[in-house]
Amino acid sequence: SHSIDLAVIPGDGIGQEVVAQGLKVLSAVLPQDVKLETEEYDFGAKRYHATGETLTDADLDSLKKHDAILLGAIGDPSVPSGVLERGFLLKLRFAFDHHVNLRPSKLLPGVATPLAGQPEIDFVVVREGTEGPYTGNGGTIRKGTPHEVATEVSVNTAFGVERVVRDAFARAQARPRKKLTLVHKNNVLTFAGHLWTDTFTRVAAEFPEVTTDYLHVDAATIFLVTDPARFDVIVTDNLFGDIITDLAAAVSGGIGVAASGNINPSGEFPSMFEPVHGSAPDIAGQGKADPTATVLSVALLLRHLGYEAEAVRVEEAVAADLTERGDSVRTTDEIGDALAARVAS
Amino acid sequence: SHSIDLAVIPGDGIGQEVVAQGLKVLSAVLPQDVKLETEEYDFGAKRYHATGETLTDADLDSLKKHDAILLGAIGDPSVPSGVLERGFLLKLRFAFDHHVNLRPSKLLPGVATPLAGQPEIDFVVVREGTEGPYTGNGGTIRKGTPHEVATEVSVNTAFGVERVVRDAFARAQARPRKKLTLVHKNNVLTFAGHLWTDTFTRVAAEFPEVTTDYLHVDAATIFLVTDPARFDVIVTDNLFGDIITDLAAAVSGGIGVAASGNINPSGEFPSMFEPVHGSAPDIAGQGKADPTATVLSVALLLRHLGYEAEAVRVEEAVAADLTERGDSVRTTDEIGDALAARVAS
Ligand SMILES: CC(C)[C@H](C(=O)O)[C@@H](O)C(=O)O
Ligand SMILES: CC(C)[C@H](C(=O)O)[C@@H](O)C(=O)O
Repeated sequence: SHSIDLAVIPGDGIGQEVVAQGLKVLSAVLPQDVKLETEEYDFGAKRYHATGETLTDADLDSLKKHDAILLGAIGDPSVPSGVLERGFLLKLRFAFDHHVNLRPSKLLPGVATPLAGQPEIDFVVVREGTEGPYTGNGGTIRKGTPHEVATEVSVNTAFGVERVVRDAFARAQARPRKKLTLVHKNNVLTFAGHLWTDTFTRVAAEFPEVTTDYLHVDAATIFLVTDPARFDVIVTDNLFGDIITDLAAAVSGGIGVAASGNINPSGEFPSMFEPVHGSAPDIAGQGKADPTATVLSVALLLRHLGYEAEAVRVEEAVAADLTERGDSVRTTDEIGDALAARVAS
Repeated sequence: SHSIDLAVIPGDGIGQEVVAQGLKVLSAVLPQDVKLETEEYDFGAKRYHATGETLTDADLDSLKKHDAILLGAIGDPSVPSGVLERGFLLKLRFAFDHHVNLRPSKLLPGVATPLAGQPEIDFVVVREGTEGPYTGNGGTIRKGTPHEVATEVSVNTAFGVERVVRDAFARAQARPRKKLTLVHKNNVLTFAGHLWTDTFTRVAAEFPEVTTDYLHVDAATIFLVTDPARFDVIVTDNLFGDIITDLAAAVSGGIGVAASGNINPSGEFPSMFEPVHGSAPDIAGQGKADPTATVLSVALLLRHLGYEAEAVRVEEAVAADLTERGDSVRTTDEIGDALAARVAS
């Protein structure tokens, strides 16, 4: 295709600032003959306060028409916890069946990490995005009384588990080390654990070149700080994926550089690309936010749309910028400009 | 009381070796006039293979009579994942209502940590022990078919949440920094999240001296590696507690030194003390296991039974041993002997 039709959702807090840089780099890297069209959407706290809406059916219909979605961040302290998360972000991931939540972690030389000895880190987490404890199943009885009971139901289907496990095997197969680790807690969550483990074992037979292993999620957090080099591809459920990818981001350069793709591999719905970080209201509007995570999310977006060479150019620009960055303090805009200049040259 | 009647469960793998050192140190630290009686139980993989039993009602009746329980580790690759965990360890924690799962993390000077810059780490996690996703609620339909659905239900009660939150506030109140952090994921798990957050806020009013804050579990893993000094006391649910205490152990000296108490504060049932680590079958029987975590669990046991001075002596002995340990390679037995000698002197 010689055009990209992008839905842009800057969202709240630093979302505006970082998305602007993402678009700047995207424009700079695209070949002249590719037309970039963007439509901006005003989802987030402001719209919620004004209208009470988070994401309507009409919004979904409109978003559906685009090739992909670029999201900054959604969330503001003025909105009760859960309202925008469930009403916007998770609603969108579920409605557009973003079952592959892709989160790469790569520690570049010279980039700060809280870990001693600058270990080698280069893995990708394939987090299931449409099931598990994220379904919103559950409820509360006798709310606010001493007899309240609140439940959360993790729902796991053969259909949902198999497709994400299969996706992860294919990704592992395509990487040089060809290694896939299943992370779960099958010794305690035995119902879901059986389904995940049995599916993993069954699909593994179709990928004889891929080396596999299994870790309980608690043990996985240990290895993420003591031996992150052991990981190549990780596949895991929605909640475990949420937890370990924040930790993974922390050890591999911080959430300022952690990108993610909420992918619908069939293409039935547009995929959504977003930094792992949140809206960081405390630093919003000050030009302090690091747009790198958003720019790397743009690289994932480019790859998803088939612009592999451009994706690589963006990633190489970021790598060069990060390794040369040192202690320099630059504004959001300056980092965006620097990255745009690199990809254009 | 001038006697301690202890149930001892060495269990599997390195459990035998480390428990022997724990008992050695316990005997050495107790005043002459305190009689230590122990009864050993053979729970674990061997008994399971021989009899098919993990923990019977008769076993529970027998265990109930003791003042406390010292556990090594349970688990062996020859037993399917989940059988001993659910059938023994969790069964015991639930049967004896061990709702306060206490896991301190302290990084001592000179002790190896994967974190750069040897940060200050001295906090304690109060993990709920009898609810949440650990209840075994849930199930599977259409098992083994393409239409399988497996669910896991996290059950949270006002009763269960309030008592552990209250316990955590009291612990925070008794510490110099008086700070308590609630860790949950209340923006996604909104039913349980409301109950935890509302209870936390309500109980906080009774502890005006305690500073409180809240972190999502994913963000908590970030701070555990970037700023662990920010934590004093953490209260959290059973699964989040499982995950973050392994990470906490990893950054504060490793699971070789991480102790835990499964506490029934009312004393209706005996509390159980165990290292956080597992049975490590790969190094079992080789004298390679570090018994420090078990010895520190013995300190928690002593404190629980009212032997505060002795608990401190054990902790000081461990601290001295760890800081002087350097790169020396010692056997399990040698470390136990060294610690026993220190507490006796
Ligand atoms: C904001 C929140 C709902 C979200 C999640 O839990 O998935 C975020 O933490 C993430 O990882 O994208
Ligand atoms: C062995 C397992 C059931 C247990 C748990 O998950 O609680 C362990 O990981 C722990 O932390 O004590």
